[in-house]
Amino acid sequence: MAYNLLKGKRGIIFGALNEMSIAWKVAERAVEEGAIITLSNTAVAVRMGEVSTLGKKLSAEVIPADASNVEDLEMVFSQSMEILGGKIDFVLHSIGMSPNVRKKRNYDNLDYDLLDKTLDISAVSFHKMMQVAKKMDAIEEGGSIVALSYVAAQRTFVGYNDMADAKSLLESIARSFGYIYGREKGVRVNTISQSPTLTTAGSGVKGMENLLDFSEKMSPIGNASADDCADYCIVMFSDLTRKVTMQNLFNDGGFSSMGMSLRAMDQYSKSLDEYKDENGNLIYG
Amino acid sequence: MAYNLLKGKRGIIFGALNEMSIAWKVAERAVEEGAIITLSNTAVAVRMGEVSTLGKKLSAEVIPADASNVEDLEMVFSQSMEILGGKIDFVLHSIGMSPNVRKKRNYDNLDYDLLDKTLDISAVSFHKMMQVAKKMDAIEEGGSIVALSYVAAQRTFVGYNDMADAKSLLESIARSFGYIYGREKGVRVNTISQSPTLTTAGSGVKGMENLLDFSEKMSPIGNASADDCADYCIVMFSDLTRKVTMQNLFNDGGFSSMGMSLRAMDQYSKSLDEYKDENGNLIYG
Amino acid sequence: MAYNLLKGKRGIIFGALNEMSIAWKVAERAVEEGAIITLSNTAVAVRMGEVSTLGKKLSAEVIPADASNVEDLEMVFSQSMEILGGKIDFVLHSIGMSPNVRKKRNYDNLDYDLLDKTLDISAVSFHKMMQVAKKMDAIEEGGSIVALSYVAAQRTFVGYNDMADAKSLLESIARSFGYIYGREKGVRVNTISQSPTLTTAGSGVKGMENLLDFSEKMSPIGNASADDCADYCIVMFSDLTRKVTMQNLFNDGGFSSMGMSLRAMDQYSKSLDEYKDENGNLIYG
Amino acid sequence: MAYNLLKGKRGIIFGALNEMSIAWKVAERAVEEGAIITLSNTAVAVRMGEVSTLGKKLSAEVIPADASNVEDLEMVFSQSMEILGGKIDFVLHSIGMSPNVRKKRNYDNLDYDLLDKTLDISAVSFHKMMQVAKKMDAIEEGGSIVALSYVAAQRTFVGYNDMADAKSLLESIARSFGYIYGREKGVRVNTISQSPTLTTAGSGVKGMENLLDFSEKMSPIGNASADDCADYCIVMFSDLTRKVTMQNLFNDGGFSSMGMSLRAMDQYSKSLDEYKDENGNLIYG
Repeated sequence: MAYNLLKGKRGIIFGALNEMSIAWKVAERAVEEGAIITLSNTAVAVRMGEVSTLGKKLSAEVIPADASNVEDLEMVFSQSMEILGGKIDFVLHSIGMSPNVRKKRNYDNLDYDLLDKTLDISAVSFHKMMQVAKKMDAIEEGGSIVALSYVAAQRTFVGYNDMADAKSLLESIARSFGYIYGREKGVRVNTISQSPTLTTAGSGVKGMENLLDFSEKMSPIGNASADDCADYCIVMFSDLTRKVTMQNLFNDGGFSSMGMSLRAMDQYSKSLDEYKDENGNLIYG
Repeated sequence: MAYNLLKGKRGIIFGALNEMSIAWKVAERAVEEGAIITLSNTAVAVRMGEVSTLGKKLSAEVIPADASNVEDLEMVFSQSMEILGGKIDFVLHSIGMSPNVRKKRNYDNLDYDLLDKTLDISAVSFHKMMQVAKKMDAIEEGGSIVALSYVAAQRTFVGYNDMADAKSLLESIARSFGYIYGREKGVRVNTISQSPTLTTAGSGVKGMENLLDFSEKMSPIGNASADDCADYCIVMFSDLTRKVTMQNLFNDGGFSSMGMSLRAMDQYSKSLDEYKDENGNLIYG
Repeated sequence: MAYNLLKGKRGIIFGALNEMSIAWKVAERAVEEGAIITLSNTAVAVRMGEVSTLGKKLSAEVIPADASNVEDLEMVFSQSMEILGGKIDFVLHSIGMSPNVRKKRNYDNLDYDLLDKTLDISAVSFHKMMQVAKKMDAIEEGGSIVALSYVAAQRTFVGYNDMADAKSLLESIARSFGYIYGREKGVRVNTISQSPTLTTAGSGVKGMENLLDFSEKMSPIGNASADDCADYCIVMFSDLTRKVTMQNLFNDGGFSSMGMSLRAMDQYSKSLDEYKDENGNLIYG
Repeated sequence: MAYNLLKGKRGIIFGALNEMSIAWKVAERAVEEGAIITLSNTAVAVRMGEVSTLGKKLSAEVIPADASNVEDLEMVFSQSMEILGGKIDFVLHSIGMSPNVRKKRNYDNLDYDLLDKTLDISAVSFHKMMQVAKKMDAIEEGGSIVALSYVAAQRTFVGYNDMADAKSLLESIARSFGYIYGREKGVRVNTISQSPTLTTAGSGVKGMENLLDFSEKMSPIGNASADDCADYCIVMFSDLTRKVTMQNLFNDGGFSSMGMSLRAMDQYSKSLDEYKDENGNLIYG
């Protein structure tokens, strides 16, 4: 269902790769809500082809760019303003990648050049995006910028590796730049911390399926899907949240506020049953 | 501007007193967005008359009730369901009062009967509201419940007194009940932590005007108004935030994520200037 | 091992019941570190006898008192000052009880008179203790006050029920009163948020043993014991933490900063194995 | 006063520059408490000479090393183990520097090579230190590692610039590595978030003196000094905090839990007085 929440607004969506991508869903919903947008992803991702399909479907120009490269970002903003006919109202940063995870390097065996890349691609790119936009005065007064994050920024999850540090850095950048962009242009900067989602990015994480099950059972309303996340992004881009800034907003069915749920405890307890003696006491041994 | 975000939804708004009330604005916006609602406040507040004016304007029944009384709450929910023709989709709890503050008792000189009242009216009433609703099965699957809070739940503000403790308790109740209501009915429970607002309730707080100035200068986008808060409530009542639950959401222009802003520091520094020697060093007398 | 960290200091320990009590261990360690103390618990608890044994062992007077009663608290402080020969340097509040839990009332079926009792005994008693002490000027300049809490104050745990709300309120009171007591007397007020511990109080919580197992496996250093907690209390009472105030300090082997550990995930996954097909995918039935 | 809290323990202190350094005070206190230590700082810092004076005074070897260089760190750990005669029990990381701040580049005009340096020196160095130590098995079972942080990791302070992001990253690294080091060796990893302190590092921050005044007046017990911080570090290195890990511990006189204090509001209000009309209402010009 559409509400015209973004009627007349111009946006840039970074990071749509394929139908599983959250950014893909956000792009679809943004257009559905009346926005005109451009899409951007790396040249490699664009060549793989699916983004172009999305672009055609949404009548959205696809601009290949490396989001960790300042010149590329300048090009994205200048082209987008030209194509869309004015300053940008909203931006989605849905970019994250850890070469250390890909190379299966454990967190106590990181390659530091790869760590630099993780931080640069997944977090510093967000600063670059905003610094470029601000220098070009490319964002409309009162505009809205959102980056996607994960609760690993606050709590450690086995296997999430250096992406946890990247997400912490990302959320800090949102606050730091949000202060300046808010003060000078009334631009909001927030992160949405999303349930684990089976996207191409998400599938790199160790034991993802079992974690999804745990997360689903811990969250009273269940894991939020990519569609749910897209809805929340729309809300944050709209004029209804104009004083919300420098926040990390959990879209996770309640997971972040849970210590232990009945369903997760029940599931967990099943695995303990076989280690109990006839009196129900745990046998360690 | 209206988007039909609450079309076909039924709501109850607790706590509208007069035009300055946040609840008043929420009621207006909810109806504007297509909802049908009932209003509830204490018998005394209703007799003072302004709520009835609002009721007439919005074609909303006004139901006098003491929100700390379980029977009264049962009556509000049963009458509301009858009047509105079905289960309730959203509820606003905008209720808070400290008799200790009214009687100018300092926090290290509290009257404990009055503290009980502060907690009962401002926080436990929220539990009662949800327990009553759940027992009556009065909330629609996937419904949304919001209570208004303040950052004093996390950080101490001089003069906010036992209301700080009440807000902490309120936010905890939102999490605790949110877990159960989410698990069993998919109902979301959240608090919105709002900028200091010059409402009738807000004006009880010591040195409110100077605090508002500090808060305004600390917040990069400035204090959120009652209208801004109403917009955020609408968003939380809508179907676009269905996986957001057990959260405390700051609607405060960024205040909660600020340590010190340029504008507040400049203002603060002015007061220090006269205490500096010719070299600009502070003189402590 | 003892370090004389509390040499010459006077303390009051509320809540020692038996050898399993954290307060019991704190009392022993405080005396070991050179303090002289009094012990206080309810008349019923004192009659049960074990506290007196501890008192004899530590040469500590046992003062029966209801910590939710202001007059009783005045008596505890005045007698303690007399017995110990001066103002009090440190106080431990280790008091918590939920009649709703005892009566097996679920969180969506609370009895509100019992909820009042939960809050009064487990949280408001802490305010009363400090208000009484401050009015009597019973705490030494730079003294230290500690209350014990649990992570349920931040995140919801099934079965912890209204104790979660009581702990949130307790931690808020620590901040609110900590501000005033710090400002006027340099007195520190903190809470220590302890791992789940098998004390008489802890054993009231549903499914405690399985939760302990989960907590142990989630915490990289394992659950903190009552002895560990006693050590941390000593540190907070000592002169080495004189600027630490209004904090909630986790003594939990890292649990509070964990999202998912390898050991807990392994355990959890065992319970999922039987629901997997030959390709290792989860089958939902 | 000394308690022999670190008797028989071996430590490495990174970052002592001169008498104003927190690391300097920690080194002195550690030795006073019975530890034997080595000191490490950059070659440039060592040549400036004061560290050597400290080394002589404490009979502590000074090992010049670049903490962002893995080989240098290996050398520090191997030499320290040799000199001190065994594995290391505690490590202090007191290292931070922003070339962007030094070059007076605003946060919306960062040089990205310099940002890399800020992150590398101030945060990634902490990971390198631990990864090196763990690979060399250089830390004793149950050892303790502390890094110094600042509340800017959570809230934005004008002028703190990219150091805020570095501190967020540092605290995340503490959690991420703390999980692994705790799980495998029982080693604790924590950060202490200290009041603003007039050290050589601290003096780089804009308007430091006025901020110190604000911080002092906001904190009920006043700003924590470098000496206070040293005491807290000793406590964290000692055996009395063996289950405390993955925490960020505020040593700040209560600042982090304050929203507004009486003293700061009074000071702030002075600056407003001249903008008030005869009725005491603020005049905005």
